[in-house]
Amino acid sequence: MLAGVNTGDTTTINLPAATRAPVAAVGPTMMRTTNQRVILDLLYARGASTRPQLARLAGLSQPTILAALAGLVADGLVREAGRPEAGIGRPAQLYEADPAAGCALGIDVGRRWIRLALCDLAGTQLARADVANPATTSSDLVDAIAGASSALLAEAGIDGPPTHTAIAAPGVFEKSRRAVKYADNVPEWQRPGLADALREHVGSAITIENDANLAAVAEHVQGAGVGASHLAYLHVGSGIGLGIVVDGEIYHGASGAAGEIAYLPIGVDPDDAVAPARGLLEERAAADSVARYAVAAGMPADVSSADVFAAARAGDGRALVAVRTEAHQLASVVAAISAFLDPELILVGGGVGQNLDLLQPALEERVAALTPLRTPLAAATLGEESILRGALVTGLRAARESAYTGRTGRS
Amino acid sequence: MLAGVNTGDTTTINLPAATRAPVAAVGPTMMRTTNQRVILDLLYARGASTRPQLARLAGLSQPTILAALAGLVADGLVREAGRPEAGIGRPAQLYEADPAAGCALGIDVGRRWIRLALCDLAGTQLARADVANPATTSSDLVDAIAGASSALLAEAGIDGPPTHTAIAAPGVFEKSRRAVKYADNVPEWQRPGLADALREHVGSAITIENDANLAAVAEHVQGAGVGASHLAYLHVGSGIGLGIVVDGEIYHGASGAAGEIAYLPIGVDPDDAVAPARGLLEERAAADSVARYAVAAGMPADVSSADVFAAARAGDGRALVAVRTEAHQLASVVAAISAFLDPELILVGGGVGQNLDLLQPALEERVAALTPLRTPLAAATLGEESILRGALVTGLRAARESAYTGRTGRS
Repeated sequence: MLAGVNTGDTTTINLPAATRAPVAAVGPTMMRTTNQRVILDLLYARGASTRPQLARLAGLSQPTILAALAGLVADGLVREAGRPEAGIGRPAQLYEADPAAGCALGIDVGRRWIRLALCDLAGTQLARADVANPATTSSDLVDAIAGASSALLAEAGIDGPPTHTAIAAPGVFEKSRRAVKYADNVPEWQRPGLADALREHVGSAITIENDANLAAVAEHVQGAGVGASHLAYLHVGSGIGLGIVVDGEIYHGASGAAGEIAYLPIGVDPDDAVAPARGLLEERAAADSVARYAVAAGMPADVSSADVFAAARAGDGRALVAVRTEAHQLASVVAAISAFLDPELILVGGGVGQNLDLLQPALEERVAALTPLRTPLAAATLGEESILRGALVTGLRAARESAYTGRTGRS
Repeated sequence: MLAGVNTGDTTTINLPAATRAPVAAVGPTMMRTTNQRVILDLLYARGASTRPQLARLAGLSQPTILAALAGLVADGLVREAGRPEAGIGRPAQLYEADPAAGCALGIDVGRRWIRLALCDLAGTQLARADVANPATTSSDLVDAIAGASSALLAEAGIDGPPTHTAIAAPGVFEKSRRAVKYADNVPEWQRPGLADALREHVGSAITIENDANLAAVAEHVQGAGVGASHLAYLHVGSGIGLGIVVDGEIYHGASGAAGEIAYLPIGVDPDDAVAPARGLLEERAAADSVARYAVAAGMPADVSSADVFAAARAGDGRALVAVRTEAHQLASVVAAISAFLDPELILVGGGVGQNLDLLQPALEERVAALTPLRTPLAAATLGEESILRGALVTGLRAARESAYTGRTGRS
């Protein structure tokens, strides 16, 4: 028997190869390619740099840097960027990633608005627009998105499609079916073939990503979650969602449904009747629940959750009861997030969540009664823009990847 | 302004470097080291191999392979392993990882038993023992573990401590405090300094890891979870725990508490009184709950959960009611696992969980009423051995790493 071969019993351990980041053998070609990527990523991250700076940061010799830069310049990914003024003797040549080597489009599609933003490969925003969304069918939706995209590119003076487009969607984009599911609130998203139609009409490669996931990405890159290795973004608005970012990447789970906590069976007796279609948690803790709790406490029947929080800020006792009830519902969610995911930080956003300052005292008091686990809570800081920002960040990552692959022929 | 520098607004995206598996620049030294690691890992994974086989699998030239093997042989990590008989002409030399370059010890400490297993670097088990655990204090516990370890090494004819030791513990080992917490059921584990005392007395580097996490690892490497990229192992016995394996690695969360679902606030009204110390879910779904449900259905007051499942198998109506109630509790847990983690597979084990065949119909019926999310369920297959097997696997991974670093001076 060869050593390490699994014989069906358990007395010999045959470790599977790690599926993430396996160590790959390195030949000279791969060495050159890897070093080009490292240098390009350094230029994206820190802006214009000299060869000695790059050599020091990458731990490579200056001839290696020179060769790598020459290749990147020839491929149109890097350009010379003048010479800094200060210093003794002839100043060193600066290099920078060419921002115009590609561009990324981010799109957030709401019921009434389509929000779009465009940036170059340096991450600088080139254009931004909010246009009305008249769509009530899937094909109207595709037309509206494609039309708004073309208009934005034209406004920025860019000829041709973006290098990559990232679009926020409710629910879960199932890659195998190339369709969105669990988006019952917005049925036009669920049409089979929507992703392919978008790709064709927008004219670029497309990423479709859950809106809470994108908000989590944005908060991680530009908001309250910068620097957190394990981040959960809890969105509480007309719906409830969770975005999970681990080591800088969205945690999707096996089929993309990780964080679909609208369906969390919290606060319900296991022998209760069938759960509502929108999800048990969404039924008990989304914006309409806040209004319902307020009505039960004596507020008028047409009160909105925004009214309730405004009244609570003014000291209305009925509104404060509703806020406390909502905080207790959210305490169960926060306790469950800690138990499953143990993030470093839970950010709370959305129309309800943005009132974390009002919710937090009762929420934390209730968490303390439920569990010894403690995860710090903080307010998300990007507000309604977070989904669009996350789409732009996601589009930018993919556009840089695509520009590199397309221009060098390497992957 | 340099391109990519974050100016405090959000109109320029400054992407953080990925924290996982960043692409590192590659110089000639790193190229040699990386290739040695690749070849050693290939030998661990497939056993004795020829240079042409290794060259093909690693995508490297035969001279590169020869140089790497020479270094590994000189460091004592690889040895020649004869020549295969078949073939035309002089058969090619075989190489294999030297199993004796180190050894790994895995330990599972129960209330009454300490189980130990020892393997060489090829993963072949060298010795196995169960010894009585007389310990009632932390220092007794350290002495018992160290004594049993020495005896096992002596039995295997190994002089000196193991290369690495992995020990299963209840609760969460907090690296910053070097102590176990959330192990209220087994207080001797929670003494500060326990980890350091174990390290000193066992004489090797030590990993302390949660028992459910280790069971998940074992099921992933040798049990019902082989090949699953996202695996959750749900342990339901006298306690409840969850082990999460993503891409072959334990998902720990930020502080090591991921999967501490004994504290999950499920099935409880958010306005209920303070939760029990052992955790709301553990109070409602662990083994003693099964007995409690059976007593409520008319079974004798001293019935055990094992009695209940045996009676259910014999068709006892009262036992079947208890099984159904337990299945409904577990349905909420399964629905929550899907909502947060979306694993490819949920394995169920432990004294209660091993009766999945009885629980599954009512459990799945209830899940279908709670959520549209579906994750396949399956019985864990390693039984009580899973924690020990997981400790041995974890010890083996660390021992291989440690043997490589120690013998080559590289990391």
